[in-house]
Amino acid sequence: MKTHRIAVIPGDGIGKEVVPEGLRVLDAAARRFGLGLAYEHFDWSCETYRKTGRMMPADGLDRLREFDAIFLGAVGYPGVPDHVSLWGLLIPIRRRFEQYACVRPIRLYPGLDSPLRDPAGLDLVVIRENVEGEYSEIGGRLYQGSEGELAVQESVFTRRGVDRILRHAFDLARTRRRRVTSATKSNGIIHTMPYWDERFAAIAAEYPDVSTDQFHIDILTAHFVLRPGRFDVVVGSNLFGDILSDLGAAVAGTIGIAPSANINPERKHPSMFEPVHGSAPDIAGKGVANPIAQILSGAMMLEHLGHGDAARAIEQAVESALGDRRLHTPDMGGRATTAELGAAIAGAL
Amino acid sequence: MKTHRIAVIPGDGIGKEVVPEGLRVLDAAARRFGLGLAYEHFDWSCETYRKTGRMMPADGLDRLREFDAIFLGAVGYPGVPDHVSLWGLLIPIRRRFEQYACVRPIRLYPGLDSPLRDPAGLDLVVIRENVEGEYSEIGGRLYQGSEGELAVQESVFTRRGVDRILRHAFDLARTRRRRVTSATKSNGIIHTMPYWDERFAAIAAEYPDVSTDQFHIDILTAHFVLRPGRFDVVVGSNLFGDILSDLGAAVAGTIGIAPSANINPERKHPSMFEPVHGSAPDIAGKGVANPIAQILSGAMMLEHLGHGDAARAIEQAVESALGDRRLHTPDMGGRATTAELGAAIAGAL
Ligand SMILES: CC(C)[C@H](C(=O)O)[C@@H](O)C(=O)O
Ligand SMILES: CC(C)[C@H](C(=O)O)[C@@H](O)C(=O)O
Repeated sequence: MKTHRIAVIPGDGIGKEVVPEGLRVLDAAARRFGLGLAYEHFDWSCETYRKTGRMMPADGLDRLREFDAIFLGAVGYPGVPDHVSLWGLLIPIRRRFEQYACVRPIRLYPGLDSPLRDPAGLDLVVIRENVEGEYSEIGGRLYQGSEGELAVQESVFTRRGVDRILRHAFDLARTRRRRVTSATKSNGIIHTMPYWDERFAAIAAEYPDVSTDQFHIDILTAHFVLRPGRFDVVVGSNLFGDILSDLGAAVAGTIGIAPSANINPERKHPSMFEPVHGSAPDIAGKGVANPIAQILSGAMMLEHLGHGDAARAIEQAVESALGDRRLHTPDMGGRATTAELGAAIAGAL
Repeated sequence: MKTHRIAVIPGDGIGKEVVPEGLRVLDAAARRFGLGLAYEHFDWSCETYRKTGRMMPADGLDRLREFDAIFLGAVGYPGVPDHVSLWGLLIPIRRRFEQYACVRPIRLYPGLDSPLRDPAGLDLVVIRENVEGEYSEIGGRLYQGSEGELAVQESVFTRRGVDRILRHAFDLARTRRRRVTSATKSNGIIHTMPYWDERFAAIAAEYPDVSTDQFHIDILTAHFVLRPGRFDVVVGSNLFGDILSDLGAAVAGTIGIAPSANINPERKHPSMFEPVHGSAPDIAGKGVANPIAQILSGAMMLEHLGHGDAARAIEQAVESALGDRRLHTPDMGGRATTAELGAAIAGAL
């Protein structure tokens, strides 16, 4: 039995509460399917930052390099500016390990109410470009502190970066309903987005068996609410993928259930698995956070590590737990605790 | 009686179908309230572009300068790239006439179904920065046509530009429920968005009687779906305001009802009134577009011109028409035509 070495970073806020439930379910799956999972825990977080002035040690990325996967909770906490905490931990991991494909599936679960009257057919995957685009270190300020002050920010889209994420989306569509929707805004953002559209047309031509359409991000968010069932694979830039995955999760019922995989498709580097949601300081420490996004991120990790059967078993355990409303956490309209729901899912395995 | 001179630009697609209904209702209001409205029509559009290579004549902006207001339909049509059509007409008008405050109210109408099971309390105004930010002419490509190709796009946020839109939002909040929510993304977009947050904190300090909060745009779109009733005034950048206003309109039932005002608050230049929706090529020519966004944009225009009573009468006429489902257009789940609904609203005045 090969043992997979997993780096575990609970991070901040509810990350610290949902990661233990994720591990509990992973352990149950490991027992049932005879998998070897060896965890190493890293307490890198905003607390670390307050003590040391760094979110992780100087050699943090080097220490992660040898793992087979990274299992992350959430990062960010009041008192440390978000751009400091995220760019000191989450974003460098995505970038250094070329996790350019962010995969965020969204679907309905029986027993979980959507805020929509008619969410029928919602079953999509957001493929988000994860290492370039609008999230860029290039930029700064001029005339700082004066009336003439201004801040600039560069977005950068490379052919290599755009083409590979588009191909990832088309390849995935071939395993699904063969439809790719592109999120754009080429009527407003006139340098990078028309370029995105051109590359989308070029890559689409390589996949004549996949049907395509594209929408500007403004109306696309409206479609997510008005006809969510029409989408299969939705591909977007770093920013647009970020927005659509939170919105999609909300449309499915709660952002507490949406998992995400930050994949290095070439498998040269470890991939990272984390919920779509953040550290949620408003509910942190109360033990009521929904652990399902973390648990399903664990399932995506097992899938990536070659254990599709175990991944599917976790998904089924989640489904069966969601069927019992007494196990719903407050974001799902219930009163269960994080631990109660986590234990029930582990038990169902 | 002062006569207001109005430049009318129907534009493309359904713009050509909804503008006549907007004018029909404006005329009815003018008769009832004794207003003088003198229209001049401009056929600037993608058709013009195909004939002349320009969306509007070279002196187009100069010709608009002398009007009291501009009443626009929608711009953009397949065959002309969106960045060409929009940056040849809509965007230059917003910029040359310093229409930096884009005001987009969103509320529920009795008789119109929201896609949400519980949209209770939805009544907000998106205040969108309208002339800088992510919509920037600065950028371009390198290594064009080669493997190393890349496109860059600069976002620019100036102190003057940010402060004035924030103040506009806070001033408006004082006439409403005294709450301003800021849309940000300072955890991902690390140069301009932290700057936006800093200015938001600084301007908020000038309005101690107004309560504030801020959300990253991803989770904010989720909140629009999960708890839309919690918002009063929502202020965002050019891109974020664009997204939130379409999403908000969808949450209210259809983007066919959302009006918008592009305001030059100093009244040095004409302001422009147009629906939030676009030219909708998919339904253009069928006579089924919802004219309400255009009609309510007309109401906002009358309000701006000092005729609040007439504006409110139009809103009431819209409400009364919406109470009759036989007058609903297809986007509202009905079978009425653009003209039937427009005529009914004019009739109700
Ligand atoms: C057509 C487009 C350029 C425009 C915008 O993004 O400003 C539209 O979406 C709007 O909301 O007015
Ligand atoms: C925390 C933040 C930087 C992050 C992002 O925007 O990438 C998060 O919203 C996500 O979706 O993973």
